[in-house]
Amino acid sequence: MSEHPSRDLAAFAAGLQFEDIPAPVLRRTEDLFLDWFGSVLAGKGSRAVESIASVARAMGPTDGASEVLISRTRSSPLFAAMVNAAASHVAEQDDVHNGSVFHPAAVVFPPALAVAQAIGASGKDLLVASVVGYEVGIRVGEFLGRSHYRIFHTTATAGTVAAAATVGRLLGLDAGQMLHAFGSAGTQAAGLWEFLRDAADSKQLHTAKAASDGLLAAYLAQDGFTGAQRILEGKQGMGAGMSTDADPAKLTDGLGTRWTLAETSFKYHASCRHTHPAADALQQVVRAHGLKLADIAQVTTHVHQGAIDVLGPVTDPRTVHQSKFSMGTVLGLIGAFDRAGLAEFDTHFRSPDVVALRDKVTMVLDPEVDGAYPQRWIGKVTVVTTDGRTLHGRVDEPKGDPGNTLSRAEIETKALQLSAYAGGATADETRGVAERVWRMAEWPRVTPLL
Amino acid sequence: MSEHPSRDLAAFAAGLQFEDIPAPVLRRTEDLFLDWFGSVLAGKGSRAVESIASVARAMGPTDGASEVLISRTRSSPLFAAMVNAAASHVAEQDDVHNGSVFHPAAVVFPPALAVAQAIGASGKDLLVASVVGYEVGIRVGEFLGRSHYRIFHTTATAGTVAAAATVGRLLGLDAGQMLHAFGSAGTQAAGLWEFLRDAADSKQLHTAKAASDGLLAAYLAQDGFTGAQRILEGKQGMGAGMSTDADPAKLTDGLGTRWTLAETSFKYHASCRHTHPAADALQQVVRAHGLKLADIAQVTTHVHQGAIDVLGPVTDPRTVHQSKFSMGTVLGLIGAFDRAGLAEFDTHFRSPDVVALRDKVTMVLDPEVDGAYPQRWIGKVTVVTTDGRTLHGRVDEPKGDPGNTLSRAEIETKALQLSAYAGGATADETRGVAERVWRMAEWPRVTPLL
Repeated sequence: MSEHPSRDLAAFAAGLQFEDIPAPVLRRTEDLFLDWFGSVLAGKGSRAVESIASVARAMGPTDGASEVLISRTRSSPLFAAMVNAAASHVAEQDDVHNGSVFHPAAVVFPPALAVAQAIGASGKDLLVASVVGYEVGIRVGEFLGRSHYRIFHTTATAGTVAAAATVGRLLGLDAGQMLHAFGSAGTQAAGLWEFLRDAADSKQLHTAKAASDGLLAAYLAQDGFTGAQRILEGKQGMGAGMSTDADPAKLTDGLGTRWTLAETSFKYHASCRHTHPAADALQQVVRAHGLKLADIAQVTTHVHQGAIDVLGPVTDPRTVHQSKFSMGTVLGLIGAFDRAGLAEFDTHFRSPDVVALRDKVTMVLDPEVDGAYPQRWIGKVTVVTTDGRTLHGRVDEPKGDPGNTLSRAEIETKALQLSAYAGGATADETRGVAERVWRMAEWPRVTPLL
Repeated sequence: MSEHPSRDLAAFAAGLQFEDIPAPVLRRTEDLFLDWFGSVLAGKGSRAVESIASVARAMGPTDGASEVLISRTRSSPLFAAMVNAAASHVAEQDDVHNGSVFHPAAVVFPPALAVAQAIGASGKDLLVASVVGYEVGIRVGEFLGRSHYRIFHTTATAGTVAAAATVGRLLGLDAGQMLHAFGSAGTQAAGLWEFLRDAADSKQLHTAKAASDGLLAAYLAQDGFTGAQRILEGKQGMGAGMSTDADPAKLTDGLGTRWTLAETSFKYHASCRHTHPAADALQQVVRAHGLKLADIAQVTTHVHQGAIDVLGPVTDPRTVHQSKFSMGTVLGLIGAFDRAGLAEFDTHFRSPDVVALRDKVTMVLDPEVDGAYPQRWIGKVTVVTTDGRTLHGRVDEPKGDPGNTLSRAEIETKALQLSAYAGGATADETRGVAERVWRMAEWPRVTPLL
């Protein structure tokens, strides 16, 4: 148990070197970066995001070294990070770390990219800083615990410290300066769940501000501005003020040996997470047996109680958003298109053939699946075909989780869909970005992506 | 008791008209504004403030409609508000509302001035918006309560909502938009006391960010960005997350009839508040009897226990900061210069005649004074002169509190001292600003102060 966990975490963040990071973690960072790139562009056109972009244009410089991806404009690092972060989480297709309930990409990559472009950092610098952001942010989220998450949006609060760590590493802060940056970040950390009750726009403000506030903290520290030495575990720090079960031991858990970045999950389908295991299992059956929609007479999904609670009431979805909580619609899209992405939901959630399959889907409580939840999200389906066969599908870990992660081809496909969704980038552009991202470690300088 | 206090407070903020505000409250607002102007300029040159100004220059526009007072440059409203707010609280001579332990000027006037200049608001608009900021911020501070203040810096947290209310009123938000602005402000509200342990720079970051984050919230609301409807009293709102004794009734207490702005105290001496009653009482004796330092043989101060606890250990102050906690030094400066301002401490805290009087001062516990504390801060001194007289001084409320407020001449003198302290403005400039401020209600447009 560390005597001064904030300091030890800051020292790790300041000291991590490219050579310290295992190659699979670096490759996974590239995967997560491309996945994030698609998510940002999918946020283009969202009213909340465009509002933040509009105020950023009014308050910030209208030119600069850092790119605002959704508008293909430039600004200072602070505003580019703010707007790109606002856009990252809209489609809710960005990554998630299950243990900390924290969405790292949305608050790490926006400030990383903005500052790397501004200072002419290398691809290796960008990789190291991104890993630092994930490792710090996830540990702060785990430290703050479940009681914190009941009131506070961890991606916003832990995210502010994660952004500071990311930018601090790019700016080359020493361990002392990094600790000051943590202090200035933690004392700005905010974000309350109250907005959920009203379906208000705050989620986009939370990621935007975590990114820009953390960035501000790091630049201030570079300039000699000081912060609290124990902003996380101190008697008047984040844990004391914003949690009742904060556990300082989590802050330094496995630093340098446990790579929490590699524990992060991709979101594969554009639907409620409770539908994912069954969707994966149906996809397995459909692919294995070459089934078409018309071949399917009946689908039984064997699920945990939580799935029935959340998805059960949604029998006739009227909106795109509602249809993402309809097990039948999700399976209908998988059956029809082999995917359930943003575009499929938008265009086909009420298509006749999708609705026809939707109404052939039932959920039944499965003791094995229910017993394994929430540690494991097992997917099991039984499909009866129109020619009388009974077929079984099963996945032990949903697609996108660390044990069943996406291939680079799958990540690229997802990024292509997301970036095309709102016209954010052409397929050629996204393919070009993907090719570059797979060689990020070779970049002499981080240049504009678009 | 309001069923929806956030909404009622927002409706008050959006609806308050110039004609609704009693003339003495308007005059007091002008007093507080000039008092704030001096405090900002006293922050010029502070390392922490200049750091924030430097990062603001790097991240924000280097020109705009809003003035940065300490550097006489311009920027966007967001950055002008940020830097002016950072400077407001450095000298710790800005105003304070005792009941909410909240320093309103530091977070209300910076965004008010910046936005009024940017949109060409009138002096009346500026007055109304400032009153709104005080009334909202003080009530949010009272709502959050003592438990909040134990961990959180109320000027930062309540200040974010106060800044949003101020700017929202200037932008002409309707009641619904104002409530959205509150939602976006409250979900950004942050500021932890942990930095005090390390004497770190966070206090300046707190006022800076409260001002700019609240401003951002109001501009977003103007653009249609939505926020939580019950960010203050809701189950996952500020009270739930950041207090254990939050009292929603405080949010709407006496709206429109109780003017909390008029309850706000000026800080008169540049020393620890525990020295103020005795300093005032000595000043009374010295002035009444035309005493010089050499005439004083002995001073006994009759004080409350808290004064002995805090000031007792400081018998031989070695630094300017320490000397502000030395009862003897404070009385020595009063005796020598009839004031104990920033400049007197800097230059004379170890002058031989001041030290000579310092060593003739004793504190004794006084049952009447101690019993009245903390509701009333009574000042009592007994002075023995070198020619053998025994003289008594007494004040029932320290100078600057509402029942013993400063005259405009005294406010102007204080502002002259503060603005000259770091070379922020010449005496002529400050006198010119004062003349203008006393006629604020007549300004057709808010133009640069310097």
